[in-house]
Amino acid sequence: MNVLDAVLDRIDQDLDRSLDRLFAFLRIPSISTDPAYGAECRRAAEHLGNDLASIGFDVDIRPTGGHPVVIGKAGSGTGALFYGHYDVQPVDPLNLWDTPPFEPRIATLADGRKVIVARGACDDKGQLMTFVEACRAWKAVAGRLPVAITMMIEGEEECGSKHLFEFVRAHAAELRRDVALVCDTGMWNAQTPAVTTSLRGLVYEEVRIRAADRDLHSGLFGGAAQNPIRVLARIIAALHDEENRIAIPGFYDGVAELPPDIKADLAALNLTAEEFLGQVGLRYPAGEKDRMVIEQISTRPTCDVNGILGGYTGEGAKTVIAAEAMAKISFRLVGAQDPEQVSRTFRAFVRERVPADCSVTFISGTNAPAIQLSYDNPALTKAREALAAEWGRKAVTIGSGGSVPIVGDFKRLLGMDSLLVGFGLDDDRVHSPNEKYDLTSFHKGTRSWARILAALST
Amino acid sequence: MNVLDAVLDRIDQDLDRSLDRLFAFLRIPSISTDPAYGAECRRAAEHLGNDLASIGFDVDIRPTGGHPVVIGKAGSGTGALFYGHYDVQPVDPLNLWDTPPFEPRIATLADGRKVIVARGACDDKGQLMTFVEACRAWKAVAGRLPVAITMMIEGEEECGSKHLFEFVRAHAAELRRDVALVCDTGMWNAQTPAVTTSLRGLVYEEVRIRAADRDLHSGLFGGAAQNPIRVLARIIAALHDEENRIAIPGFYDGVAELPPDIKADLAALNLTAEEFLGQVGLRYPAGEKDRMVIEQISTRPTCDVNGILGGYTGEGAKTVIAAEAMAKISFRLVGAQDPEQVSRTFRAFVRERVPADCSVTFISGTNAPAIQLSYDNPALTKAREALAAEWGRKAVTIGSGGSVPIVGDFKRLLGMDSLLVGFGLDDDRVHSPNEKYDLTSFHKGTRSWARILAALST
Repeated sequence: MNVLDAVLDRIDQDLDRSLDRLFAFLRIPSISTDPAYGAECRRAAEHLGNDLASIGFDVDIRPTGGHPVVIGKAGSGTGALFYGHYDVQPVDPLNLWDTPPFEPRIATLADGRKVIVARGACDDKGQLMTFVEACRAWKAVAGRLPVAITMMIEGEEECGSKHLFEFVRAHAAELRRDVALVCDTGMWNAQTPAVTTSLRGLVYEEVRIRAADRDLHSGLFGGAAQNPIRVLARIIAALHDEENRIAIPGFYDGVAELPPDIKADLAALNLTAEEFLGQVGLRYPAGEKDRMVIEQISTRPTCDVNGILGGYTGEGAKTVIAAEAMAKISFRLVGAQDPEQVSRTFRAFVRERVPADCSVTFISGTNAPAIQLSYDNPALTKAREALAAEWGRKAVTIGSGGSVPIVGDFKRLLGMDSLLVGFGLDDDRVHSPNEKYDLTSFHKGTRSWARILAALST
Repeated sequence: MNVLDAVLDRIDQDLDRSLDRLFAFLRIPSISTDPAYGAECRRAAEHLGNDLASIGFDVDIRPTGGHPVVIGKAGSGTGALFYGHYDVQPVDPLNLWDTPPFEPRIATLADGRKVIVARGACDDKGQLMTFVEACRAWKAVAGRLPVAITMMIEGEEECGSKHLFEFVRAHAAELRRDVALVCDTGMWNAQTPAVTTSLRGLVYEEVRIRAADRDLHSGLFGGAAQNPIRVLARIIAALHDEENRIAIPGFYDGVAELPPDIKADLAALNLTAEEFLGQVGLRYPAGEKDRMVIEQISTRPTCDVNGILGGYTGEGAKTVIAAEAMAKISFRLVGAQDPEQVSRTFRAFVRERVPADCSVTFISGTNAPAIQLSYDNPALTKAREALAAEWGRKAVTIGSGGSVPIVGDFKRLLGMDSLLVGFGLDDDRVHSPNEKYDLTSFHKGTRSWARILAALST
């Protein structure tokens, strides 16, 4: 038996204990966006640090302006940088969870699949642990990793990674490795592994419209006073035209048409609206009218309202005109779209539509450009072969609608490409109640990383 | 000297004693919404009943499911029904009162006006006592009232008048008079008396738009999945046209143009946007473009969004596409607008704009028609002449954006119109700490009612 086969055997034997370790990690409610969970984020970082140290990593938990970054190093030479995050999304609406979000359990779906259910089961604790467990098996069997690994596991991915850019810049020398391995992505479907070679960028803006200097009685002022909710609604309505194209001038600057062969490949995947949207109870694509669904979700830019709040939202009736209304609006970018230009032209678009009596303030979130990995990158070729060996199917290259801003930072700050491999599935309910991760994703994902580590050493 | 002049003289001579009587009434903390003050409400009813009996009214204190109603009758024939209330609002925050709320006092404002300061000084003990004192002077001078009066003074106005509808229905025969006199309203300003001739109606609807069967990740589904916040924003934006007219078909059915003389009176008030909106930090009227501010706030129907909620509204960024979005939308109605039709056509308007993949549900709130006293009502004409004689200025007819539910009950249950006359001012701090009532409002208000009683007998 060669070493890799022994490592894969070890992973199979150790599956129950690896699940115990994952569950212990999932029980920590490390919700990074809510200041009330600051201590839990710290606890998650320490928990992970202790686990990595137990495998043999040199661990350092580094403070930032927010939640700490866990750094772990094993092996000599430059090797690869592995990136993941220990924080998770909020859990609201809590009443839609079948069981408490931080009490992980194994469930069996109607189609017989076994799944791990918990907040973070997939994003990103489950995915992250596939890599940690692969390293553990290599260390246990071979006493060392096939390739040197530097781990950088952050705690602010779900709230905008506000301090990571500065962290990467400050530690550029120790983080600049041959390639970055990023585990926050998915498979094409439950049978078909994938490497994500393009990522949409993200511009996230919070807009606050203010009118009167206090809340007003709509009986007394209704009709004469500006209503900031209405102002905001009109702005949101104006963001798309009748063809569902984004109406901000210059928004599509830097968006290229796909090469005909790539477009033909996408068409050949034959992703129907029924198939993609049917899983969440929808049928009709709501994006640009002349685009395939797969383009709408991966190769075209978008604009979405992620949240809106104003006035009285409790039970019953209150006849108030709010002083202020707020919306969170984000853009997914592709190709060479410039996040700064998108942010600037969006703000100008909003300001033009704010009436004289109202004021507007903006709060910036993320500003990240889109990413595209070259198709002839050697690490990509090795990873695709390793994945094909594990899954018995060609690994496809796909584009992702989501962003992983750190991938842009790695490119910009360190000149380092990222290999995005993950085992999430479309029905994982990431960011939603009853988030899950297939047991197969966890098990074969761990085996896949063990193979990729071996392949990268060649 | 004719009888009316003698009555007015008597009021002037008796001013100090009438203030003593008002102060004794104000010292009773008849806070109706707080069960701890139940006995005090009872005491206020008995105090008022004894006072009316001392003038010569036949008094009956009638129990209800809550606080009692004071009924007092004087004179023969149908005459008029006078409505007021002896209960008051709570006093919190108590620390913002300059002196204890139930220790009435006379204070002098910076501009020299003398004012009565106490909880209930205006709303409604002060206003109510202007009518009682006018009756007292008529009885003292002439031995009888010029017109028969039935008093109905309730004790639950400040906690929703929960038992009054049933009370009026049960006593319809004895309460159905030629006209109702209601004293719970204000003057146009300190120099200009007013009769409130219209009260806007209200239709209140909650709208919930649902798209996917769960919250989605905007990176994965953005571009292809319907976003219910965007659907709702487009509907809200469509509710008004570019002239700020409400775009629901048939919405203006039943809205009549004002008679030219009434419109001229309103224009002569010269209410500027700076003056009305300036008090809340605004300047530019946001209503129908071809209407005066005073029309926008009183004689024209309106539509306002009172609340909106969807997606992530906490701190920071969450890239979610919400499963559901909600808005509370209300309409102020005027003239003969039918609340049922407004509700029905609004719902049809919304349904037409809900895309195939989304569903909508509605929750009904209030449905109340507008109240409009005919401009040629004889009691109105008489009251305006009496007010003009007292104040040396034409009495204006105004509309109120808010509602006085008893006025609708009188119309519906008894077919009886209401004449709304009061002497409150915009700076009376009704429902707030340091509530006051101008001494001039009390004194000339009493004289005004003495004149109106005389005028109604002609």
